[in-house]
Amino acid sequence: MPLAASANPLAPFLDRLADASSAAIMPHFRQGFSVDNKLDSGFDPVTIADKNGETAMRALINEHHPDHGILGEEHGSENLDSDHVWVLDPIDGTRAFITGLPTWGSLIGLRSNGKPSLGMMVQPYIGERYSGDCERAWYHGPLGQKELRSRACASLGSATLFTTTPALFNASERPVFDQLEAKAQLTRYGTDCYAYCMVAAGHGDAVIESGLQAYDIVALVPIIEGAGGVVTTWTGGSPADGGQIVASGDKRLHDFLLTELAKAAV
Amino acid sequence: MPLAASANPLAPFLDRLADASSAAIMPHFRQGFSVDNKLDSGFDPVTIADKNGETAMRALINEHHPDHGILGEEHGSENLDSDHVWVLDPIDGTRAFITGLPTWGSLIGLRSNGKPSLGMMVQPYIGERYSGDCERAWYHGPLGQKELRSRACASLGSATLFTTTPALFNASERPVFDQLEAKAQLTRYGTDCYAYCMVAAGHGDAVIESGLQAYDIVALVPIIEGAGGVVTTWTGGSPADGGQIVASGDKRLHDFLLTELAKAAV
Repeated sequence: MPLAASANPLAPFLDRLADASSAAIMPHFRQGFSVDNKLDSGFDPVTIADKNGETAMRALINEHHPDHGILGEEHGSENLDSDHVWVLDPIDGTRAFITGLPTWGSLIGLRSNGKPSLGMMVQPYIGERYSGDCERAWYHGPLGQKELRSRACASLGSATLFTTTPALFNASERPVFDQLEAKAQLTRYGTDCYAYCMVAAGHGDAVIESGLQAYDIVALVPIIEGAGGVVTTWTGGSPADGGQIVASGDKRLHDFLLTELAKAAV
Repeated sequence: MPLAASANPLAPFLDRLADASSAAIMPHFRQGFSVDNKLDSGFDPVTIADKNGETAMRALINEHHPDHGILGEEHGSENLDSDHVWVLDPIDGTRAFITGLPTWGSLIGLRSNGKPSLGMMVQPYIGERYSGDCERAWYHGPLGQKELRSRACASLGSATLFTTTPALFNASERPVFDQLEAKAQLTRYGTDCYAYCMVAAGHGDAVIESGLQAYDIVALVPIIEGAGGVVTTWTGGSPADGGQIVASGDKRLHDFLLTELAKAAV
């Protein structure tokens, strides 16, 4: 497994969490395929998958690292004053999940003494894992195993931007994003966590989002940074608590984006 | 192979075309991963992949069915007055392809006496094939082999809509689409051919697009129809030549959409 190349002794544990989460989630993806699998409970499939994925990961953490903290989207927080806090979002990209699209992922992050230190994005339908430890980052999937490196991109005019949807932005953020989009070479919507992995892999140049929670971004920081990219808030601060987030594959592009995003930064 | 269940004697040939196209295209997908693979020719990877995919399929058709016609995106037309015309788009979803996203596909369609009769969408990175013969439709991929059935959806208020981008629509089309989007339960952008397959598989309810070419839609018609859905122009006519296209999983929703789309139909 690629993360085994990490010097971080907790790295192999991410693959175990990924295995457990994937096993809990996959029976609910595209369940419309199977008429035997309809639910009468009033819960929708993505909610069940999300809760079951997080429950499976929490059980493993509590068993193997009972002194660690957990911050999860579905089941809240425990032991947040621990040196190590696992930050979990079993299904990032709910709308992709419910429409059968494979651009969602499970986010498994570790925050050590307040800083993102290890992270993995798992796409179990495709069989892909993107992981990082802030120093290096790796891909494991249909194309084999690769070390991730973000690509050079010095200016917005040659950049590919990603955002989940412009509807994320409020009235002061939207005009700033629209101006950046107008100057970019290409913009893609609807990508969620997959976009950050594409920047780490050198297939895109920046992601600009707002209103993120910690569990939306902590797992992705060690991947982006490990691949040579930069991820901060719009004011250049730590992304560890979410909020207004910008991630870039090239620091020169990042510095330019920060200058522009400052107009709407809070 | 699922299409082997088809009574159409040409069905098995689609899998051969899909194999050839995929082998030609895949070396160029995410080539940024490999520094050995950079090109100095001035052609971008997607153009090379598109041309090579079509060349590979044309060679097989010319060898095994020299009397058949071919209508391709990249290399033009030949023998279009044949009873059987293969309609090919090696990479539908160019923007997904160049940004590393797996929501592009190779479209392989057969038009027999002017009507779409067989079709396949191939996503070789994931290892998925969606196929149909207007009577039945099949999925083959990470979840095994399944027969596709579109889902019931009687009204727009409970519908998931797909479109590649609202920017496809002209000044008279856009307000009509915007009104439909406002009433739909959920809308997804950036999905290209993948959206039609999700409607066939019962994960979404309708796709609304404009400005399509024949090679954007012919391969998808036998899949949608085979799964129990409907695909027409906005005036309810044959989709075989592209143009303004609407595809629905449920005829009741389709009839409603046609009523609304008539306001901007040409």
